[in-house]
Amino acid sequence: MLALATDRYELTMLQAALADGTASRRCVFEVFARRLPGGRRFGLVAGQHRVLEVLQGLRWGEEEIGFLRREGVVDAATADWLAGYRFDGDVDGYADGEVFVPGSPLLTVRASFATAVLLETVVLSILNHDCAVAGAAARMVLAAEGRPLIEMGSRRAHEDAAVDAARAAHVAGFASTSNLAAGARHGVPTAGTSAHAFTLLHDDERSAFAAQVAAMGVGTTLLVDTYDITEGIRTAVEVAGPGLGAVRIDSGDLASHARFARRQLDDLGATGTRVVVSGDLDEHGIARLSGAPVDAMGVGTSVVTGSGAPTAGLVYKLVEVDGRPVAKRSAGKATHAGAHAVVRRHRPSGVATEEVLVTGAAVAHLAAEPGDECPAVPLVRGGEPTAASADAVDLAASRARAADRLGRLPWEGLSLAPGDPAFPTTYRGPS
Amino acid sequence: MLALATDRYELTMLQAALADGTASRRCVFEVFARRLPGGRRFGLVAGQHRVLEVLQGLRWGEEEIGFLRREGVVDAATADWLAGYRFDGDVDGYADGEVFVPGSPLLTVRASFATAVLLETVVLSILNHDCAVAGAAARMVLAAEGRPLIEMGSRRAHEDAAVDAARAAHVAGFASTSNLAAGARHGVPTAGTSAHAFTLLHDDERSAFAAQVAAMGVGTTLLVDTYDITEGIRTAVEVAGPGLGAVRIDSGDLASHARFARRQLDDLGATGTRVVVSGDLDEHGIARLSGAPVDAMGVGTSVVTGSGAPTAGLVYKLVEVDGRPVAKRSAGKATHAGAHAVVRRHRPSGVATEEVLVTGAAVAHLAAEPGDECPAVPLVRGGEPTAASADAVDLAASRARAADRLGRLPWEGLSLAPGDPAFPTTYRGPS
Repeated sequence: MLALATDRYELTMLQAALADGTASRRCVFEVFARRLPGGRRFGLVAGQHRVLEVLQGLRWGEEEIGFLRREGVVDAATADWLAGYRFDGDVDGYADGEVFVPGSPLLTVRASFATAVLLETVVLSILNHDCAVAGAAARMVLAAEGRPLIEMGSRRAHEDAAVDAARAAHVAGFASTSNLAAGARHGVPTAGTSAHAFTLLHDDERSAFAAQVAAMGVGTTLLVDTYDITEGIRTAVEVAGPGLGAVRIDSGDLASHARFARRQLDDLGATGTRVVVSGDLDEHGIARLSGAPVDAMGVGTSVVTGSGAPTAGLVYKLVEVDGRPVAKRSAGKATHAGAHAVVRRHRPSGVATEEVLVTGAAVAHLAAEPGDECPAVPLVRGGEPTAASADAVDLAASRARAADRLGRLPWEGLSLAPGDPAFPTTYRGPS
Repeated sequence: MLALATDRYELTMLQAALADGTASRRCVFEVFARRLPGGRRFGLVAGQHRVLEVLQGLRWGEEEIGFLRREGVVDAATADWLAGYRFDGDVDGYADGEVFVPGSPLLTVRASFATAVLLETVVLSILNHDCAVAGAAARMVLAAEGRPLIEMGSRRAHEDAAVDAARAAHVAGFASTSNLAAGARHGVPTAGTSAHAFTLLHDDERSAFAAQVAAMGVGTTLLVDTYDITEGIRTAVEVAGPGLGAVRIDSGDLASHARFARRQLDDLGATGTRVVVSGDLDEHGIARLSGAPVDAMGVGTSVVTGSGAPTAGLVYKLVEVDGRPVAKRSAGKATHAGAHAVVRRHRPSGVATEEVLVTGAAVAHLAAEPGDECPAVPLVRGGEPTAASADAVDLAASRARAADRLGRLPWEGLSLAPGDPAFPTTYRGPS
């Protein structure tokens, strides 16, 4: 069904282009964001692992083509063409974990029009979703200042999207996820112990805690805010002893609750018991906990829904046809026709300063500077994944890349307040 | 993998409850919203078709259990229990297309703790996503005042979520979707003709239009805003003749563009050619087009992302254990322990006036009134779907139900402005 995760107009365009011969024109499509949502300072790439799977696995089988024929979407000639579909083009892209700014070509697809146009919807679905989550998650990771974050938003997202959201958050630096499928499918570490329902199920809090400690050991995390937090903590340490792993508080004013909990735990001798908090946290709520004695935080709704920006605003635009730069004329939107080469410039300290996008003959005239890096890497050549693509989508490598790139943002780029991108995008060449 | 679309803590709770014998306690869980997002007046149910699939199809196979054992999530006894998992409880729920307000029990699950607790995450994922889309879509349908809406937001949503978003929008009253998989899987009508890329691919707009008309006939919709709308419309009618099906405008000030386009089309004799507009429309943008000569509207980002509320805020709460009402103590949150029977009251005109939620002995004392309806229907009994469940999740029936319920909202409930729910929720009985 993956092939049908597509807008109908891609098929009607394909049919018309096959009929008039334009389908074979060599095209370049670029995926980029015109702007970052909500005045964010940077975006973070995630989802390229799934884009690569689509590029290699996209097939039009009998089921899909049968549907198109029954519905009258395509004619017999188009159906035949679809039956032989294999992606055979070249693709460059930003690796998972890479930072981006407006204009950054996250993906550059070079192929015939027919081959490339069919990718538009599915590629955008993947990248708009995963980058929305990764971008929000990265801001939370920066706000958490090294304290581990647990992604626990699956219940606030579509059940399939939730799995990929967990992966994207992990790329951005989240320590773990509550989502078991993300563990099974992607190797993201999973976490979780109990909900209020477990306490309510029991005759009293003490029996619930005893049951949990019996099943999971004293290293477990006990949820102490079902009835009364002070009593909950006292009971928790009585049941588990001062070696209790952690207490979790899931409601109320988390900063003050954490302070009281820390003091109470210390008074009870449970000085090694950690304090975990959760409950409607976003990057701003995390930042407000900066001075609180919180050892780990759970984040739900806000991370899986992109914290106010549930889609990354990425578009898939035709920029070149048979070597001719093309662009829609748009009032109020800067258009930059032509395929873009990209160089990211850095200070000697490694801090990023500029994203330079170059078209046409200007490429030959761009003088290399020390500190130049190219954020776009070859992912596919002639339909086959490159050697470099494995590292570009490897989970551990992507996570390390994100940590490196976030560590090399200029200070202004770390601000949670709306403003200009972390570094400017400069266009060179005809536009 | 569906079974693993689950938070890890459900499994750890299961294990601890199996060990101490509480797993077999008879529990009632309810799914409801504490409040409607953004001061909305009503919510609309979608996703119950998928909830039913989960209730019938949820199995823990070797792959899933193998993962849990390797990761040390569950012990051997829990693994054995999971291998035999079949949902064998009773479920009542609001049908797809039903309206809801705060407190409405969208789903009531009666089963052992062990059986019911495993459903929490996946049920919430489904309903939070689909209801978010359906709720936003319903507001758009009301704002459109009978003009057809096309859902075209797939590229702004996760590729799997997009398919279910298209279905949810159709339940709410959208006429069609761009998403082919929603057509193939759910029978939602699909629509779409061409994008700007198709025009840019060609040497000029005229050849692009000629190719499209040759492939799809004069009844097609030509996208006229790639270069200059006035020229685009003139060329479109020259190429297709005055029998051209429609023109689409995808940018700029849609109301004024539509007025100019209508006048120009009429002047060219294309009086039957429809004007279709799209581009960043949400319910407010649709409402602003109220007086414009627009025949159909395409809606993308806003509908698939819930128009500012990407998740419906639904929770899955344990309300009863072995007949004992239970609730977490929450500062600032009204808690209503116990399983709720529900009656919706109406004026003689059929307009809904009140959602009455009744617990315990109060059920026997609630006097029936003319106009009482019960929005909750039996969906599953002893694990088997009821006869009523087929209608509750049938796409056409759900769409008709939504139209009926939206037509019976009180006037205040039709407002797009934030405010109180369309009708109040009243609790009767001990709480």
